[in-house]
Amino acid sequence: MPEAASVQAARATIGDSEFDRDTAVTLRKPGVYDIDLSAGWTIINAVNGGYLLAVLGRALADALPHSDPFSISAHYLTASRPGPAVVRTDVVRSGRTLSTGQASLFQYDDEGHEVERIRVLASYGDLDALPDDVRTTATPPAIPPMDQCFGPETAPDIRLPSGGPAPVQGSSAITDRLFLKLDPSTLGWALGAPSGKGEMRSWFGLADGRDADPFSLLLAVDALPPTAFELGLSGWVPTVELTVHVRCRPAPGPLRVSITTRNLAGGFLEEDAEVWDSADRLVAQSRQLARARLS
Amino acid sequence: MPEAASVQAARATIGDSEFDRDTAVTLRKPGVYDIDLSAGWTIINAVNGGYLLAVLGRALADALPHSDPFSISAHYLTASRPGPAVVRTDVVRSGRTLSTGQASLFQYDDEGHEVERIRVLASYGDLDALPDDVRTTATPPAIPPMDQCFGPETAPDIRLPSGGPAPVQGSSAITDRLFLKLDPSTLGWALGAPSGKGEMRSWFGLADGRDADPFSLLLAVDALPPTAFELGLSGWVPTVELTVHVRCRPAPGPLRVSITTRNLAGGFLEEDAEVWDSADRLVAQSRQLARARLS
Repeated sequence: MPEAASVQAARATIGDSEFDRDTAVTLRKPGVYDIDLSAGWTIINAVNGGYLLAVLGRALADALPHSDPFSISAHYLTASRPGPAVVRTDVVRSGRTLSTGQASLFQYDDEGHEVERIRVLASYGDLDALPDDVRTTATPPAIPPMDQCFGPETAPDIRLPSGGPAPVQGSSAITDRLFLKLDPSTLGWALGAPSGKGEMRSWFGLADGRDADPFSLLLAVDALPPTAFELGLSGWVPTVELTVHVRCRPAPGPLRVSITTRNLAGGFLEEDAEVWDSADRLVAQSRQLARARLS
Repeated sequence: MPEAASVQAARATIGDSEFDRDTAVTLRKPGVYDIDLSAGWTIINAVNGGYLLAVLGRALADALPHSDPFSISAHYLTASRPGPAVVRTDVVRSGRTLSTGQASLFQYDDEGHEVERIRVLASYGDLDALPDDVRTTATPPAIPPMDQCFGPETAPDIRLPSGGPAPVQGSSAITDRLFLKLDPSTLGWALGAPSGKGEMRSWFGLADGRDADPFSLLLAVDALPPTAFELGLSGWVPTVELTVHVRCRPAPGPLRVSITTRNLAGGFLEEDAEVWDSADRLVAQSRQLARARLS
């Protein structure tokens, strides 16, 4: 009689996860990739910018001789929506340790013409080939233990800073795909009392348990609530441009994401994100320029 | 008899300065610009990356419907040298308040073929159209008054961290074009005693007295000695990628530039620069990814 198989909840693995399925691109011909952008990574009806960056990042990883994004800059041109899209890539330079590429994501208008959504410029390398010399002086964020933090589902009576009700159920599907435990000291906005400090901190992972990798880091830097909420602003804070540095292959286990803004002015703000892994490595840093609707 | 003309040292004005002359591009045909890269903006024989970014920035300002860089990302592919170059631009998107463009700078190999040096992706807008609502929480750098700071010409017996002599005279022409007064607390490296803190601070201007503008800000973020020197590293710290946010038209008068690095690891480091004007506005922020030769 065969030994009874042990029953366990299957954690997704890198390569076999909803994140991998929803960011997978299909090669149409050299340099050209098709994808159906998932409706599963929307936040208030908009397709999340980090998810889109991960899609472009995976296309470039296939097109370039090097597999790991080192520095990737994206300019967001028009709003993407779930559905068919095509990514067109160009190899700008093939180097020994670094290669540079460009990629554009297009969707289709009513006549079937391509409309560019995002353009990316990126330099790729091999993270595993980097020397082990780590002299990072930055220190991990002070974030309480996970059991003292709050996921979106537990924060009671979440209201937008305008005092209005929480977003319509189902329009922020990304919250179902992420494991988020937010630092309560950055949740004042959810209780109608924004702190006035442009900070957001959270434990971060993927809901299906998949460990982080360089592509999920591109998502992680853009997946928390906007720091603008803690500055008392309401409404959408669309990304104009986002640059991510991936500095290390993340260790397995949960990440800590710490986001800050210090220069809200003239209707724009910058947001700096740091991503720390379970080995206390600063695995990714990003900065985005976003539009702020000043209330 | 005509009134005697007053004799005064003529300060250069925006538009009539060596910076303007050396960054001016000549339209060859729509979207294509020629320039002779100046030998006057070299640092240890390499053409300064911020000067090159300013050249590309000016070409894009001509090519795009909007004149002011808001967010500009450059990937440095091969080393530029003084001499003929061509900039080829593309308009990616023309918007109402923002436009996005791409530009590449090429030089010529021995056969006259174009070799790409730098590729840039940038979003431009109109700085003067921004609302006057400033809620910046960042504060200007603590830098001593100018008369307590040191220019390159006054720092005694400057030595590279390796202990070797100062660079060969004439190969760092940029120092003649800049007004730099460095914070002595970030000059330990020049006296053989690097602080171990990855910081560099300086008063900054152009030597001919020209006031700052959005394009000279692109130079300002990359014109100080490397923070790596204060971490005890010697040698060249070449820029892989540089992204600059220009947030405000700078007021006349000297700028303060503060640069920090916190993540020297795996042979790379990031450098964050802030540029503050005489009105205490945070007029530009940048981050670059650079290679570090670990000693």
